Amino acid sequence: DLPLTVIAGPCQLETAEHARMIAEQMAEICAAAGAGYVFKASYDKANRTSLKGRRGPGVEEGLRILDDIRSTLGVPVLTDVHTAEQCAPAAQAVDILQIPAFLCRQTDLLLAAGNTGAVVNIKKGQFLAPWDMPNVVSKVESTGNERILLTERGTSFGYNALVADMRSLPTMMQTGYPVVMDATHSVQQPGGLGGASGGQREFAPVMARAAVALGIGAVFIETHEDPDTAPSDGPNMIPLSQMRALIDGLMDFDRLAKASPIRL
Amino acid sequence: DLPLTVIAGPCQLETAEHARMIAEQMAEICAAAGAGYVFKASYDKANRTSLKGRRGPGVEEGLRILDDIRSTLGVPVLTDVHTAEQCAPAAQAVDILQIPAFLCRQTDLLLAAGNTGAVVNIKKGQFLAPWDMPNVVSKVESTGNERILLTERGTSFGYNALVADMRSLPTMMQTGYPVVMDATHSVQQPGGLGGASGGQREFAPVMARAAVALGIGAVFIETHEDPDTAPSDGPNMIPLSQMRALIDGLMDFDRLAKASPIRL
Amino acid sequence: DLPLTVIAGPCQLETAEHARMIAEQMAEICAAAGAGYVFKASYDKANRTSLKGRRGPGVEEGLRILDDIRSTLGVPVLTDVHTAEQCAPAAQAVDILQIPAFLCRQTDLLLAAGNTGAVVNIKKGQFLAPWDMPNVVSKVESTGNERILLTERGTSFGYNALVADMRSLPTMMQTGYPVVMDATHSVQQPGGLGGASGGQREFAPVMARAAVALGIGAVFIETHEDPDTAPSDGPNMIPLSQMRALIDGLMDFDRLAKASPIRL
Amino acid sequence: DLPLTVIAGPCQLETAEHARMIAEQMAEICAAAGAGYVFKASYDKANRTSLKGRRGPGVEEGLRILDDIRSTLGVPVLTDVHTAEQCAPAAQAVDILQIPAFLCRQTDLLLAAGNTGAVVNIKKGQFLAPWDMPNVVSKVESTGNERILLTERGTSFGYNALVADMRSLPTMMQTGYPVVMDATHSVQQPGGLGGASGGQREFAPVMARAAVALGIGAVFIETHEDPDTAPSDGPNMIPLSQMRALIDGLMDFDRLAKASPIRL
Repeated sequence: DLPLTVIAGPCQLETAEHARMIAEQMAEICAAAGAGYVFKASYDKANRTSLKGRRGPGVEEGLRILDDIRSTLGVPVLTDVHTAEQCAPAAQAVDILQIPAFLCRQTDLLLAAGNTGAVVNIKKGQFLAPWDMPNVVSKVESTGNERILLTERGTSFGYNALVADMRSLPTMMQTGYPVVMDATHSVQQPGGLGGASGGQREFAPVMARAAVALGIGAVFIETHEDPDTAPSDGPNMIPLSQMRALIDGLMDFDRLAKASPIRL
Repeated sequence: DLPLTVIAGPCQLETAEHARMIAEQMAEICAAAGAGYVFKASYDKANRTSLKGRRGPGVEEGLRILDDIRSTLGVPVLTDVHTAEQCAPAAQAVDILQIPAFLCRQTDLLLAAGNTGAVVNIKKGQFLAPWDMPNVVSKVESTGNERILLTERGTSFGYNALVADMRSLPTMMQTGYPVVMDATHSVQQPGGLGGASGGQREFAPVMARAAVALGIGAVFIETHEDPDTAPSDGPNMIPLSQMRALIDGLMDFDRLAKASPIRL
Repeated sequence: DLPLTVIAGPCQLETAEHARMIAEQMAEICAAAGAGYVFKASYDKANRTSLKGRRGPGVEEGLRILDDIRSTLGVPVLTDVHTAEQCAPAAQAVDILQIPAFLCRQTDLLLAAGNTGAVVNIKKGQFLAPWDMPNVVSKVESTGNERILLTERGTSFGYNALVADMRSLPTMMQTGYPVVMDATHSVQQPGGLGGASGGQREFAPVMARAAVALGIGAVFIETHEDPDTAPSDGPNMIPLSQMRALIDGLMDFDRLAKASPIRL
Repeated sequence: DLPLTVIAGPCQLETAEHARMIAEQMAEICAAAGAGYVFKASYDKANRTSLKGRRGPGVEEGLRILDDIRSTLGVPVLTDVHTAEQCAPAAQAVDILQIPAFLCRQTDLLLAAGNTGAVVNIKKGQFLAPWDMPNVVSKVESTGNERILLTERGTSFGYNALVADMRSLPTMMQTGYPVVMDATHSVQQPGGLGGASGGQREFAPVMARAAVALGIGAVFIETHEDPDTAPSDGPNMIPLSQMRALIDGLMDFDRLAKASPIRL
């Protein structure tokens, strides 16, 4: 029943300066709105649609930038890990390790992430039912780590399309762990541009608001000062200039939702 | 930007007394909450899963009961029509003619309903994309009738399952017509009980709240004092005893949503 | 275990001459290939995507053309019915009454069709699981009519898309009634062109062959000498000039499939 | 246009004796039927639904068993790899490296597999459209390795369900690489048993036959002498005792299909 946390950042790390610019602005916006804030960025986009898609600065340089954000700005940082080997070094640099949706059933990755003791944010696979997440959660819990977040990011709905099922949120809340709505990935159109994924940016605030009204713990929003030039996920990102109004609005719904929780 | 309207009733007409009991209670609950109210019941369930399912009192007796509700209680009444021939008589007895989802592309039914001059509530078919509803709307508009409501009631999602896509609501709002969320049918499990449809009643308030947060015009909820004995749709209905708390809660979200409308 | 029957025609009736031209050619092609043949055309397209879509000659003129095909060419004729009232007159003019997929759960239509004593071809709704068809079949059987065909024409798969699930065919065969694969409608893209449905004509022979290999009773193929000018369903139709090769090829698979039936 | 190859084995390696028993029987059955044969087994099930699911003998012991099958029986061997690091050692022991469906977009894994020079069998993700596979293929081709197979194993269709879309096969054939139908995984019901995946074993021969009729290069079938005691995938496996009749039947369809190829 804590106030909403906003997990936001530029999807893919570009430069240290760029990351810091976004983190600073978002931290200020969230503080002013009474929301928690976590900076999110990826050091490696390990599963781009096409080989030609940019992947980011890589694990070494990327973790250095993320560690710097955390120590200089004092905001918690989240990044996604792609192999068991990356978990320990990533957990040195960031607070939250994220398991990508495609990898949410890879047992060794879940165990390695759990073993670091860091918070583990598991994205529900596009191919997974929300009521099957307890099986995934158990893998992390088996390491003794119960600092877990669960994220809805859309479910396969025909080809090149996702649907965000609101039932998923209270279903996953039944695990007792905080639930996150990924408002920008859930409006992706996977592979929809041929060599890249499309997106329906206009629906991200819709998904965010509907989910916040259900009393979720956090909302995940990728943002960029110029989404159309972002190296990945541009079509579904929210422009940075719109984030203040969006988050201010979400906090109104968050207060109301936290005051009258939904129970299944 | 009017306050939320609640369209509610027992799904299938049983007796005049039963209908009046529900209509009276719902009218009082909605008035107390500041919500609009429309009574809904069906005189004929024309597409039951199984031939053994009860169909209701039929058009003559049913329209007499509905007309009586309207005139004695002074509440607007909605019922669904199944053939072009039923539209004119039904429009004598009720205020809103509803086009069932399976029939939402039957041109003659849409034209006949439009020609009555009554309000026409079109349920989006389980097989239809929300952005295809303007084609359906045009059929009614061609009669000169622009008193139209559009309802989301779930979309096919694999077999024996539906998903309620929140994108549908602001998409259909772009037509300029009021949009209704059918919170109880969208949690049906079509055919899920073999000879009848199942349902996930626990998720109906979830769907209602998420949709109301998006600023919809009305919410559609089937209710019964004892859903497990209702002649149809029991598994997804909300018990009448829970309606006051549900609607009170929804009105809080409605006020907030109407104060900050979502624009695509 | 009879040889494959081909149900084929121009989707929508144009003129008597056009219908006869197609029926004659198809009858000759099927006879040469050892296949059964049923002529199919619609007198009314009652659920066009858009009001602007052409609907056909209507019930009176249409039934006259169909009756003429039947009596002059001696081929059985199939047409679809849209209301209970149409069933009796249609059964005077044709051999097989087809229940459209959207209408496959409309009880009164099924009963009226059954009551004519004509063969009833029920298309499985895009929203229906194959294992739910026995509920639909029972409605027709309740009239004492057990001359029933069941047709797979694709299932909703996200928005503006269908998928043809091969499991549907042996599942429906378990009813004991002949099963039909609708190879051209199952590759439709409903609403995919905005004001009309798109289609993937190139996949119709794929669907036909896969289904015939499973030992179905009949294949349903809409055909036209110039699909791009057909008043409906052009994008998924097979050009008439390709039908001979297609059917000759299908018969090879039919003989093999009938010699080694699949049993669930 | 080579005769059909059968990729078959026990899903998860149990013991060397068990693997050899299955490989010997399958090799004999395939030789007698005129089919190619590839032995398939996994040394590690890296993404079990539940942590309690058995994972297999592990990479060292597993690769030893697989290498032994290859050298003593002279049959080509396929196994799946889960990390980039596993590719090189696996390529020492087996002929074909398989990319699991969940991992089909993990760029580093695809590159590592390609770099071994071994044949790479890429399973299309349950979340991926068949026309998006060229993007995946390009990742492997970028290593200079063009020894590629593409496998259809079902696509997400609502929750806990898959559908095998026959359009996928000719679509993937357009890449010019051999296409494989995974007849047993495509009838899985992911997570359908709560702590494990269910399956519809009865439909595996249906999928196999429909696909073979379309002229595919290979069919993938998991088999076991006692599926109900198999450590994984039992519900969708074909009993070993039924394999001879199944493959004999498929070869009839293969000969016919290869004689009249489908072209999109």
